[in-house]
Amino acid sequence: MSSEPRTWTVRLGIEFDGTGFRGWQVQPTGRTVQGEIEGALRKLTGADVRIAGAGRTDAGCHAAGQVASAVITTRLSPERLRMALNALLPGDVRIVEAAEADPEFHARFHAMSRAYRYLIVPRPTALRRLFAWVRPLRVGIEDLNRATRPLLGTHDFLAFSKQGGDARDTVCTVTRARWSNRGRVTRFDIVADRFLYTMVRRVVSTTIRAAEGGGGARTIRESLQALDRRAAAPPAPAHGLYLMRVRYPGFGWLPKERIDVVA
Amino acid sequence: MSSEPRTWTVRLGIEFDGTGFRGWQVQPTGRTVQGEIEGALRKLTGADVRIAGAGRTDAGCHAAGQVASAVITTRLSPERLRMALNALLPGDVRIVEAAEADPEFHARFHAMSRAYRYLIVPRPTALRRLFAWVRPLRVGIEDLNRATRPLLGTHDFLAFSKQGGDARDTVCTVTRARWSNRGRVTRFDIVADRFLYTMVRRVVSTTIRAAEGGGGARTIRESLQALDRRAAAPPAPAHGLYLMRVRYPGFGWLPKERIDVVA
Repeated sequence: MSSEPRTWTVRLGIEFDGTGFRGWQVQPTGRTVQGEIEGALRKLTGADVRIAGAGRTDAGCHAAGQVASAVITTRLSPERLRMALNALLPGDVRIVEAAEADPEFHARFHAMSRAYRYLIVPRPTALRRLFAWVRPLRVGIEDLNRATRPLLGTHDFLAFSKQGGDARDTVCTVTRARWSNRGRVTRFDIVADRFLYTMVRRVVSTTIRAAEGGGGARTIRESLQALDRRAAAPPAPAHGLYLMRVRYPGFGWLPKERIDVVA
Repeated sequence: MSSEPRTWTVRLGIEFDGTGFRGWQVQPTGRTVQGEIEGALRKLTGADVRIAGAGRTDAGCHAAGQVASAVITTRLSPERLRMALNALLPGDVRIVEAAEADPEFHARFHAMSRAYRYLIVPRPTALRRLFAWVRPLRVGIEDLNRATRPLLGTHDFLAFSKQGGDARDTVCTVTRARWSNRGRVTRFDIVADRFLYTMVRRVVSTTIRAAEGGGGARTIRESLQALDRRAAAPPAPAHGLYLMRVRYPGFGWLPKERIDVVA
């Protein structure tokens, strides 16, 4: 530990259980993940610190691998900082990784893609009730995968965005959209350069509706082309959704130290 | 639905999140799983009902597949009863299965074996903090499996029992004891005809200590033979432990409708 505090840019890998939060982003009222971490950094450094998160998740959504950056002034090393933050933070937020980044590194602006996962279980569950959507599926994995295929590539996702969302630009490039089974849990993995508010949850609900309704890929293609929010189904519940990791030039996917906690 | 209530024996498959309970068994004070289910049955049938559970789990322990039996008087079919119970029960207890059993069926007395699972993650986790023990392991899976081997077979498990536990007979027959990795989660599966209070948690902690200390199987063999509680390590935390399922003559493993919710 050097004796003089130093000003540097930290990148953090963050896991959180979204159950007790009003989402990631600081709100006028209510507990948020960003707020908790900024509060802990204030205690550690004695100064106001603003952190930038790669993905702004809704209330109730979880993260196995959110990435955030901040400029801080401290004499702590990254690893000491990580331990000190975890000692101050409540148990539902854990810093899984801390490293020094380029001074200009910004977790949101420099992210090339984000990976989200959505979990579904077919019957009521006590152990997973806050961590997956209980929804019996009347179609198989291959039907869901076929229905999802038209989402791949660059499209205007206006129909899958939230009314009153703040996105002026609703064009996203989806590079992966894949349904799979793990035991009796169904999971949906999606990667895109960017996501609109509630987009993953609307993609999940609309794909299931299209596959079960028989329209499949054709219905999804029409939903995209409609450019009308009424073409998509109401969003699937927030508590099935996980921000898994974020990709950056040079780094690849972060955080590297992610624990495999999500089915 | 017949018009006249009928008296019959129901067997229930039960999943619960143990976080908010003082364990399975009704206590003088505090919320218990047995208490919640008996309360719901009282509301449904208008009478006091006593349910017998196959495994009496400690406070904080979970169950993916507890089995219980009760004699009830109702005009509901087993499946209607299941749905009615789930409508009355809080979300952290779910009836995953209900079926009519032989009038004399008793979930505890007639169980031939119980299967428990224990989960360990190597680093602090927000998402699994209430569902696994955070414990970095300094040995590999094969070291743990070698150390555990002397537990297989019939032994007096006094050293692994709780001081003041109510078991007069401390002999158990272990038919499976297996460590494995699933992603970065380490799991321990154990099957025996019966378990003493805190036995699985003491087996977990003592096996890890023996493997890490280098004594391995020899240390575990000596711990068994010591017939002295000081030979075992303090129990691993309750929140890593799951009652997975219970085996009966004729039925095989129950519940059949178990959801795969535990890594």
